Amino acid sequence: MTGQERSEEKSECVSLSPMMEAVPALPESERVCVIGTGDLGRSLCLRLLHPGYGVVFGSRRPHSSSRLPHGEQVLGHAAAAQSAHLIFIAVQREHYDFLVPLANQFKGKVLVDLSKNLRKNQYPEANAEYLQSLVPGAEVVKGFNTLSAWSLQNGPSDANRQVYICGESVEAKQAVIAVATKLGFSALDRGSISVARELEDFPLQLFPQWRHPLRIAIGLSAAFFFYLLIRYVIYAYVTQGKDISFRIMVSLANQVCPIVSLIMLSLCYLPGVLASFLQLYRGTKYRRFPNWLDRWMLCRKQLGLLSLGFAFLHVLYTLIIPIRYSVMFWVTEHTVSLIRENRTTMFDTTTAWHDDSYLSLGILGFGLYVLLGITSLPSVINSLSWREFSFVQVGSPGPVTLNA
Amino acid sequence: MTGQERSEEKSECVSLSPMMEAVPALPESERVCVIGTGDLGRSLCLRLLHPGYGVVFGSRRPHSSSRLPHGEQVLGHAAAAQSAHLIFIAVQREHYDFLVPLANQFKGKVLVDLSKNLRKNQYPEANAEYLQSLVPGAEVVKGFNTLSAWSLQNGPSDANRQVYICGESVEAKQAVIAVATKLGFSALDRGSISVARELEDFPLQLFPQWRHPLRIAIGLSAAFFFYLLIRYVIYAYVTQGKDISFRIMVSLANQVCPIVSLIMLSLCYLPGVLASFLQLYRGTKYRRFPNWLDRWMLCRKQLGLLSLGFAFLHVLYTLIIPIRYSVMFWVTEHTVSLIRENRTTMFDTTTAWHDDSYLSLGILGFGLYVLLGITSLPSVINSLSWREFSFVQVGSPGPVTLNA
Amino acid sequence: MTGQERSEEKSECVSLSPMMEAVPALPESERVCVIGTGDLGRSLCLRLLHPGYGVVFGSRRPHSSSRLPHGEQVLGHAAAAQSAHLIFIAVQREHYDFLVPLANQFKGKVLVDLSKNLRKNQYPEANAEYLQSLVPGAEVVKGFNTLSAWSLQNGPSDANRQVYICGESVEAKQAVIAVATKLGFSALDRGSISVARELEDFPLQLFPQWRHPLRIAIGLSAAFFFYLLIRYVIYAYVTQGKDISFRIMVSLANQVCPIVSLIMLSLCYLPGVLASFLQLYRGTKYRRFPNWLDRWMLCRKQLGLLSLGFAFLHVLYTLIIPIRYSVMFWVTEHTVSLIRENRTTMFDTTTAWHDDSYLSLGILGFGLYVLLGITSLPSVINSLSWREFSFVQVGSPGPVTLNA
Repeated sequence: MTGQERSEEKSECVSLSPMMEAVPALPESERVCVIGTGDLGRSLCLRLLHPGYGVVFGSRRPHSSSRLPHGEQVLGHAAAAQSAHLIFIAVQREHYDFLVPLANQFKGKVLVDLSKNLRKNQYPEANAEYLQSLVPGAEVVKGFNTLSAWSLQNGPSDANRQVYICGESVEAKQAVIAVATKLGFSALDRGSISVARELEDFPLQLFPQWRHPLRIAIGLSAAFFFYLLIRYVIYAYVTQGKDISFRIMVSLANQVCPIVSLIMLSLCYLPGVLASFLQLYRGTKYRRFPNWLDRWMLCRKQLGLLSLGFAFLHVLYTLIIPIRYSVMFWVTEHTVSLIRENRTTMFDTTTAWHDDSYLSLGILGFGLYVLLGITSLPSVINSLSWREFSFVQVGSPGPVTLNA
Repeated sequence: MTGQERSEEKSECVSLSPMMEAVPALPESERVCVIGTGDLGRSLCLRLLHPGYGVVFGSRRPHSSSRLPHGEQVLGHAAAAQSAHLIFIAVQREHYDFLVPLANQFKGKVLVDLSKNLRKNQYPEANAEYLQSLVPGAEVVKGFNTLSAWSLQNGPSDANRQVYICGESVEAKQAVIAVATKLGFSALDRGSISVARELEDFPLQLFPQWRHPLRIAIGLSAAFFFYLLIRYVIYAYVTQGKDISFRIMVSLANQVCPIVSLIMLSLCYLPGVLASFLQLYRGTKYRRFPNWLDRWMLCRKQLGLLSLGFAFLHVLYTLIIPIRYSVMFWVTEHTVSLIRENRTTMFDTTTAWHDDSYLSLGILGFGLYVLLGITSLPSVINSLSWREFSFVQVGSPGPVTLNA
Repeated sequence: MTGQERSEEKSECVSLSPMMEAVPALPESERVCVIGTGDLGRSLCLRLLHPGYGVVFGSRRPHSSSRLPHGEQVLGHAAAAQSAHLIFIAVQREHYDFLVPLANQFKGKVLVDLSKNLRKNQYPEANAEYLQSLVPGAEVVKGFNTLSAWSLQNGPSDANRQVYICGESVEAKQAVIAVATKLGFSALDRGSISVARELEDFPLQLFPQWRHPLRIAIGLSAAFFFYLLIRYVIYAYVTQGKDISFRIMVSLANQVCPIVSLIMLSLCYLPGVLASFLQLYRGTKYRRFPNWLDRWMLCRKQLGLLSLGFAFLHVLYTLIIPIRYSVMFWVTEHTVSLIRENRTTMFDTTTAWHDDSYLSLGILGFGLYVLLGITSLPSVINSLSWREFSFVQVGSPGPVTLNA
């Protein structure tokens, strides 16, 4: 540190004298620096104050920074960087250039890059790698970016308590893990800084593997709904003038659900079969599958769960049949007409067998569906061995018999 | 070790000669010492013998200790402390003072504090911190206290296999983690000894966040049940002399369930809205919410799950309607009266539409409810990104739109 | 490395010249060696190439190895062993002897044993321990054996992302954990090499704790099914000549389910009670339970979950009653006969009370059942304290009151 820098720091501190008095003399391991007084920085600061850390804010204009939570100190960038070993960079990537003149102050410090991007592949390299290139002397650790300002401020009460970090230096990562643990998060070291791009893309994803299955489910539902609407309701209205439009709400839905459910289920098991045939045809399993098959195989779980969802709706729609007004009306009408026309009906054992078998197999099938759904829960999967998983989800994980 | 101590140890050992012969000459890393021959100590000993550890018991009266499981050695405190590097203190806090004269023997040893308290805030400082102050030369690690004697003895078969530990020394914690892993537990390092109080309070909690929501649910259910009881059953009895008390079991329950479910659901989403308004009114989100709002926001998940539970009961109560004796009787009566009085009824399309829409929306709503319930499972939450979680639980995590 | 070895390596490399040119000059930490070009080796190789590792194959006949995925190099065993620090042994145990002459090349290297056995206790010692004895200078780490070739190749998309490793050397294990993390797995260090046998047995298990409960459930179901078949269907046919065989599908199933469910539930809670009595009778809880009781207590969770499954089927079978053809026929017949015979029926309040209470208690009981099922999910268990778990699963974890 040169003499000039020292005096610069001093002058900044002096100008902040009313706050300085309040700063407790904590050891360096208990002090952290947060650079950036935006939403993320302030939330992080609130969270850090809770387990007793001393927080030093680094700001471009330390004097004008207002409305900060109590208990922290605001210094200029250079002075703030001197004050702690662990420095959180809560600044957006496009403002990183202000860090360049401070490269000397950051030498040997641990810089935690919290930045988020607005969309994937916004920049040629990961923000953390860019930061490392700007401040080569520092140990850059990517982390905490998967959390929102809200969950940083309030701690991991309902949502995800997992925090992913990555970086080159093991010591730097351990220091960050220690802070994360104290804040109540469970930090997972994902490896070297090259994983940073993946971590930066993680919070941007919105069910990437659910998109195609959902589109297929919605498309199929709409197609079959309109087909059945025309086939039954509109056809009956046009040819016989009968208004049976009330059937749209339950009867039609109850026909669409099982059809879509079964199609989704077959779409879930089909790619495994296709892949096996392709491997047999090629005579090797070491060539990559075509891209469409690869993507298809990766969303089989989602296809299966959507299929279960439609089956669940089908079960409920079936079970409410006897409490529907139209069904009760029809049943009463039927009985009344039997009496008035003095007809008798014979009990048909074949129909009874047929009807009961149909219902019974439906129930057992739904039971298996639910079992498959339960074994798809992450924590249940983790407690199964591979052999158990493939036993329950028969055939689902693809060419198991060939490769196992 | 002084000569006096050595001889002291020897004399004790000699007096135990019948047992000493049986002790295998294990290396120090395979030997552990357990001080305290109570329930917890004996259970721990049984568990430690399983993967092949040599267990040395430290007892105040080594000669009178009876009914110990096979394979372990009983020595006096001083001699036991000498025999192993890792020492489990399975003694209640009020008896810790016997450790003071042994402070020299414990120098450099790892002491695992297993003590539990009977209630929160029983003592001014955590038991582990108190132990550390008594034996400054030892490395105190808090751990295993979240397990019962029963689960220590039998291993983690059905219940929690997670063990939390904390302590200052990294090496000491690693030694304890190694033992925990060998016993089949999965140990999680929670940080420094200052977390000990939290770990000591953990086994004492009994659904702390469920208490208020449960009270609200029970209160609401009771209130609406009595209101409906008076409004329908008692009123009918008093004014018309009709006994419809049988409706209490199903009809009344089926009216109470959806009312309570919807109120609980609104209580789940209301605090988020209130918090947003408060932040807008205050013009900042860096002031803490009032205490009642904070507590309310922390139990939103529980309110939502109770709401789902009542909705589940409502679905079942609704689905059994047609198999109730009273309903079947009424339906038959209705048909018979139609014939006898020679009336005809007209099919009302509007009623059919109304009835079916009502049922169909109910089913879809319940489907969404179940989806919310599934995404509240800890393992599912952990596999979602923050954006995905807040997408599914719309609005539920509070002022997301303001802070994200 | 002796001069002879060097020249040997050179000569092999020369003969591979067309491939050698393609090999990128990666640093040693980015290069791994895979010995064995079978299914497992190739799949592992494909997976390793993805995050950018340079893979060197070790093969007995490097020239004839064909159809390898792109981007890797094939060398003789000795040369391959020299080229990387981390060496995956993807060879079956019975071929391990070829490693003996290479012991010098393996000195100081990390050998990852991936081998699987065909059945439990196939060999006197664990494969990893056998490997260590063959190559004493290397650091053997057991790992990745719980994964199939398929999941190694495709990465942890739907199934288990947990990888267990064990070994003596902490550094060696950390190197393996680093690779596993880069491949997208979450590696868990299970301790020393003595755990290897357990890890090798893990992928062979197929629901070991489910076997007995499943057999009991199937046996009970079959027994009660045949009893009821004879008691109702065959008896009615023989004595009255009536064919009510259609009842097999739903009515009989609906009688079997609740009976088996309740028996399984009592089997789930009975061993805890027996164990308590045994402890009281013996006057101590430090003697092991008899073997049968021990095994019984370990499968209580499975008994309970099967009981829940049967209860779930019972609920569905009950709810479809009113939409069965035979029931609808009977209801109509009943109404018609009332009219034709001009009978009247009186509403019986006692029957209504009885019937509704029965249904209502059934629903509440099923609700409790589902709650027990949810608290048996691994991730929910892990978030409960011991006191909370035993509160929900009252009595289920056995003699809690005695030991807690």
